[in-house]
Amino acid sequence: MISIQQAAEIIRSQTIKRSVTVRPLSECSGFYLAEEITSPFDLPSFDNSAMDGYAVCGISDRYDIVGEIPAGDTSDHSLEPGKAVRIFTGAKVPNRTTAVVMQEKSRVNGSVLHIEETVNEGQNIRQKGYELAEGDSVFKSGYFISPASIGLIGSLGLDKVKVFNKPNVRVISTGNELIQPGEKKREGEIYESNSFALQSALARFGFNCQEKTHIRDNFSAIKTGIADYLEQSDILLISGGISVGDYDFVKQALEENGVEELFYKVRQKPGKPLYFGRRENTFVFALPGNPASSLTCFYVHVLPLLQLFSGAKTTGLQHIEIPLNHDYDNRSDRPIFLKALVDHQTVSILNRQSSSMIHSMATGNALVFFDGQTKLRKGERVETILI
Amino acid sequence: MISIQQAAEIIRSQTIKRSVTVRPLSECSGFYLAEEITSPFDLPSFDNSAMDGYAVCGISDRYDIVGEIPAGDTSDHSLEPGKAVRIFTGAKVPNRTTAVVMQEKSRVNGSVLHIEETVNEGQNIRQKGYELAEGDSVFKSGYFISPASIGLIGSLGLDKVKVFNKPNVRVISTGNELIQPGEKKREGEIYESNSFALQSALARFGFNCQEKTHIRDNFSAIKTGIADYLEQSDILLISGGISVGDYDFVKQALEENGVEELFYKVRQKPGKPLYFGRRENTFVFALPGNPASSLTCFYVHVLPLLQLFSGAKTTGLQHIEIPLNHDYDNRSDRPIFLKALVDHQTVSILNRQSSSMIHSMATGNALVFFDGQTKLRKGERVETILI
Repeated sequence: MISIQQAAEIIRSQTIKRSVTVRPLSECSGFYLAEEITSPFDLPSFDNSAMDGYAVCGISDRYDIVGEIPAGDTSDHSLEPGKAVRIFTGAKVPNRTTAVVMQEKSRVNGSVLHIEETVNEGQNIRQKGYELAEGDSVFKSGYFISPASIGLIGSLGLDKVKVFNKPNVRVISTGNELIQPGEKKREGEIYESNSFALQSALARFGFNCQEKTHIRDNFSAIKTGIADYLEQSDILLISGGISVGDYDFVKQALEENGVEELFYKVRQKPGKPLYFGRRENTFVFALPGNPASSLTCFYVHVLPLLQLFSGAKTTGLQHIEIPLNHDYDNRSDRPIFLKALVDHQTVSILNRQSSSMIHSMATGNALVFFDGQTKLRKGERVETILI
Repeated sequence: MISIQQAAEIIRSQTIKRSVTVRPLSECSGFYLAEEITSPFDLPSFDNSAMDGYAVCGISDRYDIVGEIPAGDTSDHSLEPGKAVRIFTGAKVPNRTTAVVMQEKSRVNGSVLHIEETVNEGQNIRQKGYELAEGDSVFKSGYFISPASIGLIGSLGLDKVKVFNKPNVRVISTGNELIQPGEKKREGEIYESNSFALQSALARFGFNCQEKTHIRDNFSAIKTGIADYLEQSDILLISGGISVGDYDFVKQALEENGVEELFYKVRQKPGKPLYFGRRENTFVFALPGNPASSLTCFYVHVLPLLQLFSGAKTTGLQHIEIPLNHDYDNRSDRPIFLKALVDHQTVSILNRQSSSMIHSMATGNALVFFDGQTKLRKGERVETILI
């Protein structure tokens, strides 16, 4: 049995063969950059007006209006002292512009502009290169492409970006007791839902479950099913069938398919019987069959591998420290992830933490982590993972 | 000019005509429930084993092993005192079972089971109905369908769920100075990137931008373009063209298309010149053209409407209070959203906050909100919106 940190280190240290694609900018959201983005020009690439108003030359309280420059005007203008032009947000300011005066701070009388504020040199002018200089590094390879990153990349004129491909993921669920939602249930049977929850968790973080299947606890069926999915997947998630029971064929089926075990069992609660292995460039997680354990392992261990495979430099969910909303006596000596609800200022640990129960996870939005037994008072800050 | 709270209230109070679809469970992730989910049976629906081990009858330190019950066995078994059966996780325990003993806590000698712990009545048995009783309300209508919710709904055997449809969203960008990424730029022109950032922000929260287009600052083109998109959309986002400049035709084009103004201008920074209107069941946001303003308005005002339209009961991004990583002197008297980076324990306000600059937003993961001028010391907790 290894620690959570050791498991994370083993996952993090895998060498992964990644592939890249040049994608149109509008389809890059949520991918990781496979190239460094540098600025192809100064941004902005010309001095321009931050306001709708008047570009003026010299410091004065009145100017003669001599023209108008709409945004997008590409011609070259120049101002003489005492002259002003009407100008619009984003438009190139004329040569020799001293400042731009907001139209709300001015008054026009025929062709004369009266200023109702003190004009300061450079005001309301966005200077060439003030956001980025030509050649500046904007984003390194491995950077996550967020909405704001898309905006910045677009403003550099790039309509295509080289990104890492995301892994091809498949899910197998196992267990004779499991039937599919919608089927008629007899006593002794349980609806299989882990594969749906995993598929949804994949989607939530921008990954696609290519295919999923259920296999009953029959060694040759499991071995063949794994062989088939291993061929086609970068990451294979198997739900159930990995604990100590005689009917748990998964580990043996993985071995006989040439999958090398990288770890089995992690000192954590829930989610102890977690298996991680690889065959060449294909990775396998076998997740415990209990619903809450399965999703906890996904958030803590699977997601970082999915992100690494996708080229990420940093992985995992946002961790924050936030005050507890109540006293809490943690009696687990194993490191534990507790279903919790982050409110505005505090976090509350939810009732009903059993690893087979998923209700509290469905009503929560976080996991509180304790490394060992501890008695905490309301207001003490605890390690919280936002899910 | 109205306050942020007034704007939120106007958005929140809109009556929205929503439509619903019954979707397969595997396609419900990220939608909001359009029905209440109640439990169709006790969950679990029979007493079952939480472990791989032995179901025993009576309290003793040795039992005769009389059989085996695999998970998924639907037949009816009964135990006599002093007898035990091999049992697996999730399997139905026989009638008269006192407890389940983990296999790691026992030793088998021929057909005799020796117990190496004290047997407590009920241990390792998940009792019928301990998670949910038949008829219990599980989720109300309007509940967000997360991965864990999908897991719970699946375990209730539901393979289809009634959800609210998401709005049909279109984006128009305006401005003569703007050219598309990939085009050749002349001095005075700027690459249009807001529509890409908005498209990406929509995708990030599970919404689809059906279509987007760019229209130059020509009144009849803008009016026709808006008319066309209004017909086809539930929510129309217009980027730029809504400030006080003479070239800003958008407001008039909206009016002439029968769009009723619900508010225009919000006391906030960035994003003051925000317009919100509706025509029948179609809503329009006209967003400021500055990249950071546009995205800030999206996160603060547009996202809640998207969520409400999708049937959400609660809307908006996660707000938390978290300590500042440095002193900060906020001189803005307008309520302000500052680009920021939440680290593990603190939040740092980033440099370069100008509303035309998006670099700090692309490197951050949060917005810090101040209601007015304030001088803060490192360690003081500030209102932080996770983006």
